[in-house]
Amino acid sequence: MPTKARRWVLASRPQGKPKLENFRLEEITLPDLGEHELLIRTEYHSVDPGMRSRLSSASYAAALPLGETIDSAMSGIVEASNNEKFKPGDRVTGGFGWVSHAISNGRGIQKLDPALYHGKLRPTAAIGVLGIPGLTSYFGLLDLGHPEEGDTVLISSAAGPVGATAGQIAKMKGCTVVGIAGSKDKCDYVRSLGFDRTINYREASDLRAAIAEACPGGVDIYFDNVGAEMLDAAILNMNEHGRIVVSGQVSEYNRADNELHGIRNVTRFITHRLRMEGLVVFDYFKDFRAAQTEMAGWIHEGKLVYTEDISAGLENSAKAFIGLFEGENHGRRLIKVS
Amino acid sequence: MPTKARRWVLASRPQGKPKLENFRLEEITLPDLGEHELLIRTEYHSVDPGMRSRLSSASYAAALPLGETIDSAMSGIVEASNNEKFKPGDRVTGGFGWVSHAISNGRGIQKLDPALYHGKLRPTAAIGVLGIPGLTSYFGLLDLGHPEEGDTVLISSAAGPVGATAGQIAKMKGCTVVGIAGSKDKCDYVRSLGFDRTINYREASDLRAAIAEACPGGVDIYFDNVGAEMLDAAILNMNEHGRIVVSGQVSEYNRADNELHGIRNVTRFITHRLRMEGLVVFDYFKDFRAAQTEMAGWIHEGKLVYTEDISAGLENSAKAFIGLFEGENHGRRLIKVS
Repeated sequence: MPTKARRWVLASRPQGKPKLENFRLEEITLPDLGEHELLIRTEYHSVDPGMRSRLSSASYAAALPLGETIDSAMSGIVEASNNEKFKPGDRVTGGFGWVSHAISNGRGIQKLDPALYHGKLRPTAAIGVLGIPGLTSYFGLLDLGHPEEGDTVLISSAAGPVGATAGQIAKMKGCTVVGIAGSKDKCDYVRSLGFDRTINYREASDLRAAIAEACPGGVDIYFDNVGAEMLDAAILNMNEHGRIVVSGQVSEYNRADNELHGIRNVTRFITHRLRMEGLVVFDYFKDFRAAQTEMAGWIHEGKLVYTEDISAGLENSAKAFIGLFEGENHGRRLIKVS
Repeated sequence: MPTKARRWVLASRPQGKPKLENFRLEEITLPDLGEHELLIRTEYHSVDPGMRSRLSSASYAAALPLGETIDSAMSGIVEASNNEKFKPGDRVTGGFGWVSHAISNGRGIQKLDPALYHGKLRPTAAIGVLGIPGLTSYFGLLDLGHPEEGDTVLISSAAGPVGATAGQIAKMKGCTVVGIAGSKDKCDYVRSLGFDRTINYREASDLRAAIAEACPGGVDIYFDNVGAEMLDAAILNMNEHGRIVVSGQVSEYNRADNELHGIRNVTRFITHRLRMEGLVVFDYFKDFRAAQTEMAGWIHEGKLVYTEDISAGLENSAKAFIGLFEGENHGRRLIKVS
């Protein structure tokens, strides 16, 4: 019997903030499974702000073509398999996007290891704290930030999945950690994770001064998920030899190429010997397994906490994505599909 | 008999481009030499664009106070000495600024080593290619740029002393080197140094496209002396894992804090895993001697060429400095004082 599936595709390219009309939910009929293929039913898919840049400019090499499935991580259950490495009932993760079902030849999907996934480590962690966001925190902070005991680490979008994890790892490394978030609730949450201090940027009339007050000894590492004015304000508070980890630039994603804000304070790179470096976590692919094992250990020991913000129903994917740019989410945003 | 000396001081803080009225040439009478002191007669002093930032904002920690001597490197001859380490006739360098004579207690000045300074290596090289500009090229390119054989290296202000030296070192490392300069003459000069290609930015209506044409395989290292629009155009041509060495930002030096241009394309740091790092050459102080010895070897072998742009007369120092921001100079700008 043919499988009916639903998927979200790119209907039109957003100008500025994405709108519902830029997305379309389609029903399709999946073909029969071929040799070595398996059918996966999605349990959860992720909703990622970084996806925004791929929706824009058709000139960008990685731009998503119109009519294509919106990309994301997903975790699901194998329903049928012609592949000897997978059997029905196996729990797997892959990058199939906002879909109810996917057919795979087995490449690029991972079986969840039951030795890791139990107790505090829920299967959803595979597309969150042990997936791309958590790995971004881990490699960004450790490999680009080089945290040393006593360093002051400033983190923007501190209540988001990347910032929250980066801050907890920085605490384990003996740093003083200051988080920036957009509401009192988020700031309370961030402090509950062990951050030393928080800045509610919506209440700060002068972000540079607010950072100076929260980081009286200056900033050694700025782990940036936001960009633009917030990055500029952080630069003016960096200590000599400070490191800026460019993890995300969410305040720029909805801007056209000719509207990008960027930063003004490049001369500071000379006077303060600053380093700024961008991160694409897939460059660390060969080290993923070791990092995931270490982070899983921290989670089981209770040293690393993760929070998920789960909406039910594939029909809500686009709305959940749009809400990311309103600062709605609290932790890793996921859609529970089935 | 008391020594009459002349010196240039900061008369007022420039707004925008510096003007003659911001500087004042004074005559002073130097005190008699104290214990361990020596009197140096300036032969040459340097004229440095990087000095501009110290003339501005009184709020900047390193700002030069009004009435103070304008800072620069100088080379001169010891005229009298109460210091057993120096004797009259010794040739020395130090940081005494735009002055005809200076009194020193011997700290921070260096005697020129006759084993290095002969033949192609003139004494003026001590405040040029073996001084701060050349050392900036050396450590910026090698320590921050990490040139590898086959890399494409793009250099702005390529006819200036920092860019010209950086380009020649990059050629020795097996790189393809492209220089940006502001006239046909400068471009001809830059190619005569062995640069593979040049871009005359005054004739390029679209700098991004001009760089793309000159660097068809993209840019691996951008050695930046200019900043702002030129830096932004370079960023759009960087290859993945490209390195940006922030050596100077001459297009920003005449701008007030609230007029800085900076860069727009920070999102590229993520998509292209870029690294941007600023340089203060004094951080490498302990390695200066080894670098100078290596560069002196290259000069004697004819592998590294340096050009000086020398004006006669201390009365011309301010005019020569102002001309730097008009792109007048060709190589290291020096004033021959006596």
